[in-house]
Amino acid sequence: MQAVPARPGDSVDDVDTPTLVVDLDAFERNLDLMANAVHGAGVALRPHAKSHKCPDIAFAQIERGAVGICCQKVGEAEAFVVAGVRDVLVTNEIVGEKKLIRLAAIAKKAKIGVLADDAASIRHIGAAARAAGVTIDVLVEIDVGAHRCGIAPGAPAVALAELVARTPGISFRGLQAYHGAAQHLRKPEERRAATASAAALVRETKAAIEAAGLACATVTGGGTGTWQNERDSGVYTELQPGSYIFMDADYGRNALGDDEHHFEQSLYVLATVMSAPERQRAIIDAGLKAFAFDSGPPGVYGARGLVYEKGTDEHGVVKVTSEARPPVIGDRLWLIPGHCDPTVNLYDWIVGVRGTRVESVWPVAARGALT
Amino acid sequence: MQAVPARPGDSVDDVDTPTLVVDLDAFERNLDLMANAVHGAGVALRPHAKSHKCPDIAFAQIERGAVGICCQKVGEAEAFVVAGVRDVLVTNEIVGEKKLIRLAAIAKKAKIGVLADDAASIRHIGAAARAAGVTIDVLVEIDVGAHRCGIAPGAPAVALAELVARTPGISFRGLQAYHGAAQHLRKPEERRAATASAAALVRETKAAIEAAGLACATVTGGGTGTWQNERDSGVYTELQPGSYIFMDADYGRNALGDDEHHFEQSLYVLATVMSAPERQRAIIDAGLKAFAFDSGPPGVYGARGLVYEKGTDEHGVVKVTSEARPPVIGDRLWLIPGHCDPTVNLYDWIVGVRGTRVESVWPVAARGALT
Repeated sequence: MQAVPARPGDSVDDVDTPTLVVDLDAFERNLDLMANAVHGAGVALRPHAKSHKCPDIAFAQIERGAVGICCQKVGEAEAFVVAGVRDVLVTNEIVGEKKLIRLAAIAKKAKIGVLADDAASIRHIGAAARAAGVTIDVLVEIDVGAHRCGIAPGAPAVALAELVARTPGISFRGLQAYHGAAQHLRKPEERRAATASAAALVRETKAAIEAAGLACATVTGGGTGTWQNERDSGVYTELQPGSYIFMDADYGRNALGDDEHHFEQSLYVLATVMSAPERQRAIIDAGLKAFAFDSGPPGVYGARGLVYEKGTDEHGVVKVTSEARPPVIGDRLWLIPGHCDPTVNLYDWIVGVRGTRVESVWPVAARGALT
Repeated sequence: MQAVPARPGDSVDDVDTPTLVVDLDAFERNLDLMANAVHGAGVALRPHAKSHKCPDIAFAQIERGAVGICCQKVGEAEAFVVAGVRDVLVTNEIVGEKKLIRLAAIAKKAKIGVLADDAASIRHIGAAARAAGVTIDVLVEIDVGAHRCGIAPGAPAVALAELVARTPGISFRGLQAYHGAAQHLRKPEERRAATASAAALVRETKAAIEAAGLACATVTGGGTGTWQNERDSGVYTELQPGSYIFMDADYGRNALGDDEHHFEQSLYVLATVMSAPERQRAIIDAGLKAFAFDSGPPGVYGARGLVYEKGTDEHGVVKVTSEARPPVIGDRLWLIPGHCDPTVNLYDWIVGVRGTRVESVWPVAARGALT
């Protein structure tokens, strides 16, 4: 873990760079907006902690009514359970005896759920739970259009649900039905159509499970791009948005419908100009190790005419167009990450600022939790 | 720092995934090949440690004759000096009082060099060195075609060299002339032409500095794509290759000339199939947080007909073509990262394997050293 880049009470001008910074006012408005929009709709909020990997943020979500959190990795779940979170759903298939032993171990301290889309994996989860003397909740993941993990909806899913129900040590809780590919469809009507299609598959599968005599208490899914659609679907019981707390350049490219809530950009990388050899070029100290580039380069916030053109390992080349005031060495830029989740994973600390002051310095406790 | 994914003596089959794995036989052949190819050529080898961030590897390079290492960040230099490396060149402009205080502090324990391409920065480095009572070596960086940092060759560089020479606390050591953009030109003749052009600018600038009465002892640069050209240029005195120890998919796309040495792929991410819902698709546990994607997706090693199609945060979607034996859940795949440096930065540990056994588990001590 790297040394802290700032301390509470510091001026923002004294934060060392490059550093991950959260605008706490915008961040808290995002937290409140989601909590209020879900509250009273008869749907639970279980935010995805893969976005922040930070227990301080998980508790800020739980204090506002979230029922627990989601994770993707056993290592993430361990970090949150150690920090005191008591309800964690690992929204992923977990394969391998070592990982299942660890998963069962944390089920002694917290309510733990996990996904399955395969019969052998269900038997392995059951064996690990029985060996540890715990019960693990299992949700069957169905493929509702993302074409990633997930068994086919309908009869194949029913067969897995029945297998879960009759396997000692595990408990059938319902369906995971996350349509990841729908989150960044750019038009609201495209996202609505994708969720409608997913919800139809869920309804059909849920009815078939119930017809087989099993309760299907939970239907969970949804992300920052589509959560309102799942909330209003009548079939989802739980929402899993993650990025809404931070937002990023990629989510910023989604067009929003009039009836869709707008989350604010709260996450930035603060960087410093370290070289300015020509009028048309400034070099900053944030490159491929300071941002994830899978969704394109970062945006430059509030600085007219500056474009982040290219990243190399530790350099960002910023194009200075003719309309820009050319930056000078020592100038600080605020950058909007292209994709928040894998960018956060590059940092050990999230520095929370309010106005011109550092208010909090939170450890990214589950950073690098890959296994 | 995450828990170790393996222990020395473990079978490779027991390494938890996803994990960064080095094939030690290939890695050591790469180390030896570079050391032997530079030895006796009258040129020093100063490998770039930004690629590995790992003191164990730095010492393996120094034991084979490297004069020291390069870093890009003060935080990296700190990690290597703490580990006992005694000669570190920070091949980057370092801006800001906090960072310069830290740089001067490690100059009490090791020979430290840093770059400058600007007059004010030279004065700041001098002030920090004097305040700490140390001497810091300064090299003037010139832009030889990469169009990143670096002052223009010729008279502007001479003026900075003279400023360094007359500034107390710092010592003028020579020129940094790294042509980053040349490393991945695909044809050997393109790379040769780029280095020839860079070398001509270096010769002219070095002559002008010497005509001004200053010694220009060091000319340093070169990378894994061009190091033979700099070695044979007659003007470079020191080489800075980093990736040669590991290689990656992007370097693998360079065509090599008959007279160019061939380094072997030694770096892999070992991943596990966690879902295989359809014949044409397998999902592995390594996605956007397990690889850097700036140079494209990883390659699948030694598995005919499998193509890493798409990464999401913690999933890799592998396309199974008709010629492939379809993977089953629990199968393990060896992936070749698109770009080694930012991929290594995602891991806390490098697991060294020889044949079927884990031999070493090295900490990536400078992982996340951004400031």
